[in-house]
Amino acid sequence: MTDATDGPDESLRPDDGFHVFDTTLRDGAQREGINLTVADKLTIARHLDDFGVGFIEGGWPGANPRDTEFFQRAQQEIDFRHAQLVAFGATRKAGVRAEDDPQVAALLDSGAPVVTLVAKSHDRHVELALRTTLEENLAMVRDTVAYLRSRGRRVFVDCEHFFDGYRANPDHATDVVRTAYEAGADVVVLCDTNGGCLPARIGEVVRAVREATGARLGIHAQDDTGCAVANTLAAVDAGATHVQCTANGYGERVGNANLFPVVAALELKHDRRVLPPGKLAEMTRISHAIAEVVNLTPSTHQPYVGLSAFAHKAGLHASAIKVDPDLYQHIDPERVGNTMRMLVSDMAGRASIELKGKELGIDLGGDRELIGRVVQRVKERESAGYTYEAADASFELLLRGELQREEAGRARRYYRVESWRAIVEDRPDGTHANEATVKLWAKGERIVATAEGNGPVNALDRALRSALERIYPQLASLKLTDYKVRILEGSRGTGSITRVLVSTSDEQGEWSTVGVAENVIAASWQALDDAYAYGLLRAGVEPQE
Amino acid sequence: MTDATDGPDESLRPDDGFHVFDTTLRDGAQREGINLTVADKLTIARHLDDFGVGFIEGGWPGANPRDTEFFQRAQQEIDFRHAQLVAFGATRKAGVRAEDDPQVAALLDSGAPVVTLVAKSHDRHVELALRTTLEENLAMVRDTVAYLRSRGRRVFVDCEHFFDGYRANPDHATDVVRTAYEAGADVVVLCDTNGGCLPARIGEVVRAVREATGARLGIHAQDDTGCAVANTLAAVDAGATHVQCTANGYGERVGNANLFPVVAALELKHDRRVLPPGKLAEMTRISHAIAEVVNLTPSTHQPYVGLSAFAHKAGLHASAIKVDPDLYQHIDPERVGNTMRMLVSDMAGRASIELKGKELGIDLGGDRELIGRVVQRVKERESAGYTYEAADASFELLLRGELQREEAGRARRYYRVESWRAIVEDRPDGTHANEATVKLWAKGERIVATAEGNGPVNALDRALRSALERIYPQLASLKLTDYKVRILEGSRGTGSITRVLVSTSDEQGEWSTVGVAENVIAASWQALDDAYAYGLLRAGVEPQE
Repeated sequence: MTDATDGPDESLRPDDGFHVFDTTLRDGAQREGINLTVADKLTIARHLDDFGVGFIEGGWPGANPRDTEFFQRAQQEIDFRHAQLVAFGATRKAGVRAEDDPQVAALLDSGAPVVTLVAKSHDRHVELALRTTLEENLAMVRDTVAYLRSRGRRVFVDCEHFFDGYRANPDHATDVVRTAYEAGADVVVLCDTNGGCLPARIGEVVRAVREATGARLGIHAQDDTGCAVANTLAAVDAGATHVQCTANGYGERVGNANLFPVVAALELKHDRRVLPPGKLAEMTRISHAIAEVVNLTPSTHQPYVGLSAFAHKAGLHASAIKVDPDLYQHIDPERVGNTMRMLVSDMAGRASIELKGKELGIDLGGDRELIGRVVQRVKERESAGYTYEAADASFELLLRGELQREEAGRARRYYRVESWRAIVEDRPDGTHANEATVKLWAKGERIVATAEGNGPVNALDRALRSALERIYPQLASLKLTDYKVRILEGSRGTGSITRVLVSTSDEQGEWSTVGVAENVIAASWQALDDAYAYGLLRAGVEPQE
Repeated sequence: MTDATDGPDESLRPDDGFHVFDTTLRDGAQREGINLTVADKLTIARHLDDFGVGFIEGGWPGANPRDTEFFQRAQQEIDFRHAQLVAFGATRKAGVRAEDDPQVAALLDSGAPVVTLVAKSHDRHVELALRTTLEENLAMVRDTVAYLRSRGRRVFVDCEHFFDGYRANPDHATDVVRTAYEAGADVVVLCDTNGGCLPARIGEVVRAVREATGARLGIHAQDDTGCAVANTLAAVDAGATHVQCTANGYGERVGNANLFPVVAALELKHDRRVLPPGKLAEMTRISHAIAEVVNLTPSTHQPYVGLSAFAHKAGLHASAIKVDPDLYQHIDPERVGNTMRMLVSDMAGRASIELKGKELGIDLGGDRELIGRVVQRVKERESAGYTYEAADASFELLLRGELQREEAGRARRYYRVESWRAIVEDRPDGTHANEATVKLWAKGERIVATAEGNGPVNALDRALRSALERIYPQLASLKLTDYKVRILEGSRGTGSITRVLVSTSDEQGEWSTVGVAENVIAASWQALDDAYAYGLLRAGVEPQE
């Protein structure tokens, strides 16, 4: 690809045909709501290196003290197996020698073997933001690249606002690419900084610039049209051999090109090896791990790696999926470390209940009568407003309950509730009192417990725990982690049906349960009741009642 | 585009050059976690019609009782201004005449003027799922299209699994398209059902099929590669003139092509008018409104309409953005009803409060101090979890309260609540008792009222009405029409903050109010309280307290 004739000695360029370049730590950190500590950045760098990207852009040393610290610590603390560390910075200031510019010096001081220099390539930005001439802009690019090369650094040049600049003044935009390449940049990266391009335009411009300059080109796409992944792939189709992406597409405004679908498309659709062997299958885990570090809930609907990415509402197709799952999914989910899930929904038939049982490790052994009863029960409850696709644990309790009925004539329980009560009182001083009382039987003992909380559900939760904790100490490790309320048939005002979903976790994992009732407190109670029963089931406790 | 020579009489085809076809209510509803009531579907249909899509696919009548009801009620209750209603169904069963297939009859019975028929176009699916021959598959398409056409319906044919089918057996896939078109289908839609395609492949196949068949083609893309928007646009570039999308990209697995970025790209990038004039500027509002109906948080990072879509971390570029914002954003956000946000300084407040006041007919007369106080109050409350975007009536009460404070030293009220209490009791027999007591002062009188209801909020609502109805008989005409609950900061279990939105109507119209508190009952109380105050304000009643 590096077929320029006037460029620097080709033998200096490493033989690295295709670059997967990650900028989560620099551009991705621009996302609204992300605020990374140095420790966060080190953890993410480890995950990215583990995934096998070729380059990790760590930040702008000198411009930001946290980034300066990151480069120091990353080189001391991380033993990179696949990635090279990249420092990001700008070309020298106008009217200053590169060797005299402290910002350029900070790039060298960072110790990073690779530097990405951002250069202006849109004439209006040169005038408005740099306040200099187009000639000086080219000189800034030339001098800074040449200086960093002379100091042994590998240099990539990011042409900011390239596609808009190419529309406004194609000659200057092209001159910037040519100048950077001739000065010794390994790759010149065309940036759709404002993210307004569509794939056809990207392909056209990349092709034209390659022909005009002979430079090795890269692509940096923002997602403002929802096409960043496609734009990145269009650039590759047009000859770019370096893609800049961020984990989970984090980035300014809408975000950047998402590393995971870009890499998956290259590996699985273009049949191009861009990761070390075996690493693609770790993609789902790494995507979720990075989301945890930046403290964002992993998107359930992210391509390839989302929880829903291979979830099928069974119904009509369940039997066909059993015969040949590949007819219903574009890739085998295991190739990206994800799994197929069958959702139990009101279209559910026998085949999907059987599949679901298998997924849960419960062999229904083709017992047609039992399966029929479960299907019937799921249908009844879903038509009453329950939703099992979002409440696996409640579904498993239902399934096990039916199994026990078959084996022992009745479902066995951990405790038997006699009654409960919740009171919310608004006092004249504007404060609220929330109190709940639970009366139940467990292991032959009648227990009455009362608790207060910051709301009636919280008070019920505390009362139930306090009633059970002595008998079932395993409940101490349970934590409610999420609580969702949905009013069904919302057009009947406060007379509607309420559905509550509760997520609960112990040290090993998380599960979801559902409750439906004509009021939110009673629905919450049901979901809590299931949550505790499932927690005890997971803990291996035998039902006593 | 309809340049077939063997097709039916071209004069029968309406002159409608480009179709924006929405399938939120059918395919979008397949998204994991979405469960729409008939009332939800009617509300979404109104929003989509308001936005100006040409076709709204409402569901599968006959296959699903809720969908059957939707078609009945939509035709009675909605006065569609732009959209035509579309019923979705399958081609006739193998070996049965179209006129004898009850599923086909249900499509006619739905009364929808347009029918989308799904047809198999992948040979393996014909064998495995339909268990019939390729010849019979073609006959099923031919007969069903012809029959529906003979009964005056307009017909679109969705070729399911088309792109995979075209790879496996291009002749049969092409035959299905040709057969459908020659039998009288207006549009034959190529579906990337498993969502595994990339744009280059989509363009190539659409072009080849157009050349081979002369049919008018549509595109239906799933987002499994993260390229559904780009795939849709690639099909349009290759000659497709019908795009099937869903609001906010809702759909099975990862989702469908997102209606909003597709329409925005066509209008703003392709310069093609696909919506009625002025409607694109309502896109942000409509996207968020639909998210509220399906009870999903609007994605902050959705292209064009996300809260972050035009949010700039000011920093370096602040002054340049002020001089020429167009250098830093790909479109003017107002064109899609969104706004630019500077994340460091918050300049937006004052102007929008003034505008909003004007919208409500309240002249704030540039009173800088008053406006400043309102901005301050809105900021405080929004940071506490209130949302005035979805609760105009609560906002107006807040604004009028501040005005009265300015004029009279304090806000005037219709009644003064001393305290209230709600009790929910689960009895040993499994039934629930819900009882509420309200103590308040109105027109100098102390009133205590108690009521029962089917839940604690319903009981509170009844108690409040019963306390006030003698003094304010105007309340008799008020009806609660919708009630929504959202848990904010959901990761603290039942200890989270709860936001309630209530819609209320009188004979003249409907309004929405909001309440936020640490528990759902207290939040509901606030929203009810505002709903009644606003109802009395509308009725022209003077506050007494």
